[in-house]
Amino acid sequence: MAHREANRITGVQTHKNAPPHSASLYFSPGAPGEERMAEQAVDSTSGTRFTPLVALELASNTKEEAIVWLLSRIRDKQQNGGADLLVEQLGPGAGDQKKENPNVFLVGSTWQRLLSGAEDVGLFKEYNDGSMRGFTCANKHNFTDFNGEGEGFLSMAECQYIVKHELDTLRAIKETHVPGHTNAKLYPGKSIVRRLQSKGILIQMFPLHHQDELKRLSFSWYKKVKLSLQPLDAIRHYFGEGQALYFGFLEYFTFALIPMAVVGIPYYTFDWEDYDKYVMFAVFNLVWCTVILELWKRFSASLAYRWGTLSRKKAFEEPRPGFHGVLGFNPVTGREEPLYPNTKRQLRVYLVSVPFVLLCLYISLYGMMIYFQMEGWALSVHDDNPNFWTGILLFIPSIIYAVVIEIMNLAYRYVAEFLTEWENHRLESSYQNHLVLKVLVFNFFNCFASLFYIAFVMQDMVLLRQSLATLLITSQILNQFMEAFLPYWLQRRRNKKMIRKVQKTKTLQDVELPLADQVRLEADMSTYLGTFDDYLELFLLFGYVSLFSCVYPLAAVLVVLNNVTEVYSDAFKMCRVFKRPFLEPATNIGVWQLAFEAMSVIAVVTNCALIGLSPQVKDYFSESETQLILWIVAVEHGLLALKFILAYLIPDVPKHIHIKLARLEFESLEALKKKKMLEAAELSKGVQ
Amino acid sequence: MAHREANRITGVQTHKNAPPHSASLYFSPGAPGEERMAEQAVDSTSGTRFTPLVALELASNTKEEAIVWLLSRIRDKQQNGGADLLVEQLGPGAGDQKKENPNVFLVGSTWQRLLSGAEDVGLFKEYNDGSMRGFTCANKHNFTDFNGEGEGFLSMAECQYIVKHELDTLRAIKETHVPGHTNAKLYPGKSIVRRLQSKGILIQMFPLHHQDELKRLSFSWYKKVKLSLQPLDAIRHYFGEGQALYFGFLEYFTFALIPMAVVGIPYYTFDWEDYDKYVMFAVFNLVWCTVILELWKRFSASLAYRWGTLSRKKAFEEPRPGFHGVLGFNPVTGREEPLYPNTKRQLRVYLVSVPFVLLCLYISLYGMMIYFQMEGWALSVHDDNPNFWTGILLFIPSIIYAVVIEIMNLAYRYVAEFLTEWENHRLESSYQNHLVLKVLVFNFFNCFASLFYIAFVMQDMVLLRQSLATLLITSQILNQFMEAFLPYWLQRRRNKKMIRKVQKTKTLQDVELPLADQVRLEADMSTYLGTFDDYLELFLLFGYVSLFSCVYPLAAVLVVLNNVTEVYSDAFKMCRVFKRPFLEPATNIGVWQLAFEAMSVIAVVTNCALIGLSPQVKDYFSESETQLILWIVAVEHGLLALKFILAYLIPDVPKHIHIKLARLEFESLEALKKKKMLEAAELSKGVQ
Repeated sequence: MAHREANRITGVQTHKNAPPHSASLYFSPGAPGEERMAEQAVDSTSGTRFTPLVALELASNTKEEAIVWLLSRIRDKQQNGGADLLVEQLGPGAGDQKKENPNVFLVGSTWQRLLSGAEDVGLFKEYNDGSMRGFTCANKHNFTDFNGEGEGFLSMAECQYIVKHELDTLRAIKETHVPGHTNAKLYPGKSIVRRLQSKGILIQMFPLHHQDELKRLSFSWYKKVKLSLQPLDAIRHYFGEGQALYFGFLEYFTFALIPMAVVGIPYYTFDWEDYDKYVMFAVFNLVWCTVILELWKRFSASLAYRWGTLSRKKAFEEPRPGFHGVLGFNPVTGREEPLYPNTKRQLRVYLVSVPFVLLCLYISLYGMMIYFQMEGWALSVHDDNPNFWTGILLFIPSIIYAVVIEIMNLAYRYVAEFLTEWENHRLESSYQNHLVLKVLVFNFFNCFASLFYIAFVMQDMVLLRQSLATLLITSQILNQFMEAFLPYWLQRRRNKKMIRKVQKTKTLQDVELPLADQVRLEADMSTYLGTFDDYLELFLLFGYVSLFSCVYPLAAVLVVLNNVTEVYSDAFKMCRVFKRPFLEPATNIGVWQLAFEAMSVIAVVTNCALIGLSPQVKDYFSESETQLILWIVAVEHGLLALKFILAYLIPDVPKHIHIKLARLEFESLEALKKKKMLEAAELSKGVQ
Repeated sequence: MAHREANRITGVQTHKNAPPHSASLYFSPGAPGEERMAEQAVDSTSGTRFTPLVALELASNTKEEAIVWLLSRIRDKQQNGGADLLVEQLGPGAGDQKKENPNVFLVGSTWQRLLSGAEDVGLFKEYNDGSMRGFTCANKHNFTDFNGEGEGFLSMAECQYIVKHELDTLRAIKETHVPGHTNAKLYPGKSIVRRLQSKGILIQMFPLHHQDELKRLSFSWYKKVKLSLQPLDAIRHYFGEGQALYFGFLEYFTFALIPMAVVGIPYYTFDWEDYDKYVMFAVFNLVWCTVILELWKRFSASLAYRWGTLSRKKAFEEPRPGFHGVLGFNPVTGREEPLYPNTKRQLRVYLVSVPFVLLCLYISLYGMMIYFQMEGWALSVHDDNPNFWTGILLFIPSIIYAVVIEIMNLAYRYVAEFLTEWENHRLESSYQNHLVLKVLVFNFFNCFASLFYIAFVMQDMVLLRQSLATLLITSQILNQFMEAFLPYWLQRRRNKKMIRKVQKTKTLQDVELPLADQVRLEADMSTYLGTFDDYLELFLLFGYVSLFSCVYPLAAVLVVLNNVTEVYSDAFKMCRVFKRPFLEPATNIGVWQLAFEAMSVIAVVTNCALIGLSPQVKDYFSESETQLILWIVAVEHGLLALKFILAYLIPDVPKHIHIKLARLEFESLEALKKKKMLEAAELSKGVQ
């Protein structure tokens, strides 16, 4: 077998002749029936073979003593404050030895350690009665898929998540600084890894891909042309709940758009928007928005229950790596750590960030005005001399504006990240909320301001339709290009170079890379920055459809087409372009649910206003414009009230899951009561 | 001492010569320094003296064997499935022996039992580090007020709550029916007390008053004329958190109204409403509504934290006593019990209750129309022959209408209770939600429909002001009368009769009643039905102020005056008119917070519309009515958005409490981690 051959060549010493059953004590991903064993590494201290799960890359100028100290802390037993993991240095790859960073380490673990780690992180697994319960080592044999020592019980992504958690919670004991790096101060009880990251000593920590699993996943996901749903469970198994929920939402959103698209095509082709149906389409739009968002909540609760994240408790949140401040005592933990006064942060938010965002909004408005001037100029040129070229010229301003919008969004994104970083939030969640809010407000404004202006100030429905189409199509093309094909092309060039090098030195026929080269290749891949940009794109598409599709019913069709290609390009990007991301245990789509709901409220208002502007409705109230407006406002208020009542009446969790959760709670209460009763009985026996 | 004398006469056998220190083992309310010992009873089986906490009244035709069985179940040890409480029959009182029900029982408990019960119900108490923690017997000595055996650690109300909980959770074991009552079936694991209640065998179960504590409380609460706040902590100590939160809210609401009242007086006296200030008052109104509701959330969180209910977990909810259905297996507990299909209940709700509520709303509208006809008739009579009597006649329709509204509200309330009972909700919380919703919708409609009609259809601001004043004043007078003075008067008659009887037989000078008579007197008092009606009244007053006070600024003044008397009459009613209620552990004002917030949203819409109708604003937009309406709608949407953003930005829990809660959570996580680490260390030792 080629990879065994390759293994021997790399620096990692493989105990080729170790008895096969000994491997089962350590991590080996996947169920039995695996085509081939995973590549393995050997811990030099304990001499145990292990499958590498996570790679650590330290800066090439890291002092030797720092490395020795870090490895010993990682290997140390838990009761001594260590992480009790296995770790080994990665051997040299096929590339240029001088250019390569030698400080790449592979981390693995024994099964025993992973199972106790699963309890630490509060992983939920299927119990033998079909319910999902927090895993505990004490009754591990009562969990459905637990056989023997527990091989295959945890997915590789879960193992990597556990290893990450254990590394993240590796805390300084008495060390005052990182050995050899006196400027990297340590405080008792604070995370070592976070400090190394913030001081630039730890460049990156990433989970490794599993080539066979990845191949299988990508085949069932995007490689075959098929009319089937995405393999959400397999995606969750490989990438974790956060990713799987995103792809689940993308698929759900696409299906939810199909009725709109089906209704939209005849509207567009037969020019129905000139008739009464225009109003019907707007009303349909309204109801659709509310209902799909409510149903999504229930669907996502089902998914989260099946994946065991619904009842999982949030872990205590550590400060972000970049957080800094003056030393003081944390009022919650009582530990000495950097503190940053909240008032100072509030000042930064309200005196710098808010004005800056407002300035950006002004600039965006200014850009919009320039666009309208260009539009007017193009129109006048076309009117003066109408021919084919000036006909094309009519579309140029819209296309330029669409490109400018994308560029402004991108530039703003970087500045928003910088500003939010500078606001110095202590927790990642607070950082994320502030960043999402900043980016959402600007992107919403930037993308939709011109459409609102055309619809309600200029009241030009033809121009609105044309602008909407241009914006939608241009931004879709740009997005797909920027998001998947550009990074892929860059990545491909690097890959080819690497493969050529390996082939040059080894002249192997098989293009499968040896472990050392594979890890280095993955280390060079771009880092996946989370689902933020993906959700943002969906959010804007949702905006185009829900706000204005009654004047351009083809919008839903375009978005459906976009989403179908989006599934493929996003899947491809996850599997081939980016480093594997760590699993994120997500219960729902979080702040995005709120964002989509806010958009659907705005959609109610916008659609009601568009109905009010439609010629049919205007004709109906031809005597009195006041009457028309009052009716529209009354209908709008009624719809908004209906929306809130619907959201209140439809339960967020489906009933069968609610019953399962209640049963679990009831059982734990009963167990507690029984325990108390036994204690009381023993106590009274003791007294007698 | 008179009461000792009395004790000997009553049927309760008091061990008069028992050594005083032995009493400290059993419940005795209040801190040291008590003026007199509480009245005591003796458990005939164990022979222990105890202070009665809760009275049980069984039907006078209850079979002897049922009584013997129930008492033995109550007295039985916990490991045998009993409640392990002390219980004794109440002796005959001074009244007519034939008319008196002999089956009244007094229940008490030992301190030991109460403390373990406190752990069962999850009571939170102050820990020695100043935080609030769930009480556990294991580390009872670390709680602040725990001295010696724990006397005075639990308030009497808490003890009564614990006794109630233990009685409620006394479950059938193998009994198939109540002995002697074959129709009262029992199922293993179901509550005995609830079954006895639903079968009419247990007439009532109520906590006893403590005359000395009550005297002290009423003196500091409503008996002295003072300019101080209510003694909320003392109210909570005697009546529990639910009551104390109501009185806290009443006081908070009154203080919140004072700025409105202060601004309102010059508006009214100097007729400012004809000037620009009318708009200013409406805007002030808007901001005020939002801000006070948000601040109340924070204030109530502070109170709930101080009282230890904020982090308390909800207990598993048992079915309501009145719930019935076909025998089946509960999907949550797996026990055999009556089930009622949800679809059947939904059918009852949507096919009967909803149409009925709509019918009632129609009747209410019909009543309103009759009122307007009467109003028109009175006006025409006055116009024909204007004199003093026809001047008074002008007010008659409003007063009649106000009385009719109150009667309709009352009648509807009874029907709503009947309907909600008939809907056969399984849980008390679901019953309450359906009842509150029904009553709120109708009361809102009934009270405010005429005002909305006058304001927006008739657009007659003078009539609006007059109707508002009449409605407000009449309903306040009626409420105070119905709520406090009528029940008091009835109660007083009964009291006097009882005292006269006691005096007749004993010719005592002291009007203090002996225990047996006191318990019977309390048993005859009306039952306090919870804070529902009190909150409803505040809700409607809030509506009058927030919706229309810009046209009648004196409304706030009237409501402040009403609230001041309301504090006194409610306090009086709680202390003197009603049976003592069981403590309700409340974290917040629950569904009422939602109701008040819904009202404040409606207030934004109403006030914006009133601004739009004001002559000044109309003058400003004199050219175009359309422009005016569009501006008003835009302002309204902006204000609503601002309201939601404010509600989102203001944290619901004050920061210092948030830190305390986070610290508690952190500590429990740390303790868990430590425990796991120790276990791992022991395990590895065992392996070696």
